[in-house]
Amino acid sequence: MKSDFGTWLADIIDRARILDIRYPIKGTYVWYPYGHKLRGRILKIIRGLLDKTGHDETLFPLLIPEEEFMKEAIHVKGFEDEVYWVTHGGLSELNVKLALRPTSETAIYPMFALWVRSHADLPLRVYQVVNAFRYETKATRPLIRLREITTFKEAHTAHATYEDAEGQVQVAIGIYKQFFGALGIPYVVSKRPEWDKFPGADYTMAFDTVLPDGRTLQIGTVHNLGTNFAKTFEITFENPEGEQEYAYQICYGISDRVIASHLAIHGDDKGLSLMPAVAPIQCVIVPILFKGKEETVERAVSNASKELNDLRIHVDRSESTPGNKFYHWEMKGVPLRVEIGPRDAASGTAVLVRRDTGEKKTVKISELKKEVENTLDGVTTDMKKEAIKEMASWISDAASLDEAQATLKEKGGIVRTVWCGEKGCGLEIEEVLNATLLGTDGEKPKGECVNCKGNGKEILLIAKSY
Amino acid sequence: MKSDFGTWLADIIDRARILDIRYPIKGTYVWYPYGHKLRGRILKIIRGLLDKTGHDETLFPLLIPEEEFMKEAIHVKGFEDEVYWVTHGGLSELNVKLALRPTSETAIYPMFALWVRSHADLPLRVYQVVNAFRYETKATRPLIRLREITTFKEAHTAHATYEDAEGQVQVAIGIYKQFFGALGIPYVVSKRPEWDKFPGADYTMAFDTVLPDGRTLQIGTVHNLGTNFAKTFEITFENPEGEQEYAYQICYGISDRVIASHLAIHGDDKGLSLMPAVAPIQCVIVPILFKGKEETVERAVSNASKELNDLRIHVDRSESTPGNKFYHWEMKGVPLRVEIGPRDAASGTAVLVRRDTGEKKTVKISELKKEVENTLDGVTTDMKKEAIKEMASWISDAASLDEAQATLKEKGGIVRTVWCGEKGCGLEIEEVLNATLLGTDGEKPKGECVNCKGNGKEILLIAKSY
Repeated sequence: MKSDFGTWLADIIDRARILDIRYPIKGTYVWYPYGHKLRGRILKIIRGLLDKTGHDETLFPLLIPEEEFMKEAIHVKGFEDEVYWVTHGGLSELNVKLALRPTSETAIYPMFALWVRSHADLPLRVYQVVNAFRYETKATRPLIRLREITTFKEAHTAHATYEDAEGQVQVAIGIYKQFFGALGIPYVVSKRPEWDKFPGADYTMAFDTVLPDGRTLQIGTVHNLGTNFAKTFEITFENPEGEQEYAYQICYGISDRVIASHLAIHGDDKGLSLMPAVAPIQCVIVPILFKGKEETVERAVSNASKELNDLRIHVDRSESTPGNKFYHWEMKGVPLRVEIGPRDAASGTAVLVRRDTGEKKTVKISELKKEVENTLDGVTTDMKKEAIKEMASWISDAASLDEAQATLKEKGGIVRTVWCGEKGCGLEIEEVLNATLLGTDGEKPKGECVNCKGNGKEILLIAKSY
Repeated sequence: MKSDFGTWLADIIDRARILDIRYPIKGTYVWYPYGHKLRGRILKIIRGLLDKTGHDETLFPLLIPEEEFMKEAIHVKGFEDEVYWVTHGGLSELNVKLALRPTSETAIYPMFALWVRSHADLPLRVYQVVNAFRYETKATRPLIRLREITTFKEAHTAHATYEDAEGQVQVAIGIYKQFFGALGIPYVVSKRPEWDKFPGADYTMAFDTVLPDGRTLQIGTVHNLGTNFAKTFEITFENPEGEQEYAYQICYGISDRVIASHLAIHGDDKGLSLMPAVAPIQCVIVPILFKGKEETVERAVSNASKELNDLRIHVDRSESTPGNKFYHWEMKGVPLRVEIGPRDAASGTAVLVRRDTGEKKTVKISELKKEVENTLDGVTTDMKKEAIKEMASWISDAASLDEAQATLKEKGGIVRTVWCGEKGCGLEIEEVLNATLLGTDGEKPKGECVNCKGNGKEILLIAKSY
């Protein structure tokens, strides 16, 4: 799959029935039932993390009036090339053009201006899970570069002080670390360069992972908006001294790309390999039938499925051969297979086969539940470990631009090097390497800038990115 | 509230923090956290009913290419005045105009054409919960007449035979009966007149309820599409004899109006009254503090809240007076209040107060959990009964057009009368009464048509409807 990752991903998304990629608009896709269940499990995790950290789920309109959308000049500039505009209702032209949200700052903040009156209303923390739209002109890809982002989780907060807002940046980073951790998606966190921050933000912190082709994918961002949007939308509050102040704002988001990463990072040539926490089917039971022994096997299978009914299981009683069933459920990414044949039935055993390692183990049916649960725990632990190991192998240090260039070309992944922190120099590095500066990781380097030989101020992460 | 229902509903939706009605686009609103939780509980019920009757949740794109949208002529005609069109992406005009789905037949059926190959693929039953858009030119109202329908649950099925499809109509009606039943929303089911069926359907079955102002609200529809859309979108399958046939299709939907009905039917002058199954807070505990007794009360409250932690409870420890708290939580519709004061704390008791009836009961804290659960069950039963009684009082028979007219004018609700079944005559009745023919309820009448005095063939339901 690594040799041709793009084809692998599009192919497996289709074959495993995650998305139907044949919808007649470029960059928009249909969630099949199996994909939709996976998506739901993943959303349940992030909702749980947000709910227990004081965030309230809300839902704002999709449409944004042109006037609101146009208020924040830098924000508009950042999005003007990719906003879809609704201009007609029925057969008549609308008086006011309506934008399909590319992101919801300009839909949410006019309401924040109404909601926030006093310091007692702060902090305010809301989120929503919605579709969002970008008129992408680059090549679209399922789950990665979409015209309809179907799974946009955006959180927006407002705070009484700069310090409280800064604290929220750390909370948001912590939530995303837990979320990606639960999905076995390794990441680097960096501060995006000035010229690549969110339009309208003071600064942007970003999570990137590495896909099997060695290119990085931005999978989450946290933006400190300072008081920029508060000034535009007049989000003010009365402080304890009775004075009006602008609120400090943070926003952070993730998208379908999280799902893409889960599929890409754990998958292999056999297909998907889903983590037990999010797999629509955690365990598939395959009866191995032999003539004359059907009843014995069926009885054992039926007992096994009763034992396991707290889990998400599926008993494959279809007409296929066992071999085809194994192949099918491995392709779909089911983390564990339970095989029960006539000999197993006779001896009261079953064979467990792990999707991630292929490892087999014969266990007693009387202990099936415990054995399956332990094995699934092992799958989870090992999948996370394996992904972290793989990620570590993608990160290289480079002492010179030549070395960086060679690494990016021969191996890919993320190159760490020393930078002076100057924009002009950064842009030169991007141009020379034909790569993206992901950003700086906060560590302070020794030595000189790899490009201008000036004083090294930052550790810079560089990659070929999606 | 009955005297000015429209104002009551808009006001309580705002005050109870269901929706913020100040969003700067007419007919679109913001779900507050409290409203969003209520919406989530209601959706959970319908998803549960659909999932256990063989429906798979999916998600289709919002945007529909003009060509697909225009394929089914009658369908287009029915929606052309109310479709929003996206014409621009970024600064450039799109080659193909894109419709925002007003409903998803034309998004889903091109995919059904790919998914359905053989009779073994049938029946196919999917649903989705999405936003949908209608450019309403009539006066918009929160939850009732929307430009962005935020909670559109639409199900679409395909079948190998006419009989199987007809069976699905009954299944769908059964699901909606259970759903409305669980929410204590009474209804009549009728077959819409020919001229009021879904554009493109063979016939439409509809659920209507009566709101407190005596006007009916359509809250659910089930459409038998026959093979009309299958012919347009070429949804064919190979039957067991190896021949190609068109699939038979059913679709059925509900929307935010279900939530409106729940609020309207159970609410009163004090505000909302939510059923325990869907209330974001099922039980609010209000400590009644007296100087010097705070600790005793707090200990009892803390015990009570531990006892009840399987329920969705809230302990109101805010600074308000008990009276204000009572008023606040009654307005928000919390079905049960638990009051604990110093005397209660001393005697190991608590006072339960029902939102629906105002009934009070003193119970032992040691038996609190059982008492609260029993009381909530009682609330559920009584709220359903009360709503059904109210609904029955809205339904009247009329032996003449004059009687029908008088009833609709003086009382409202639904008038049942005898009709010949002819379209021309039906349209005359609508015009004379300035009312809507909801449809026919399937019963066969005795006597003559109330208008043309011809042979009575149907029992007709007439109302002033939203």
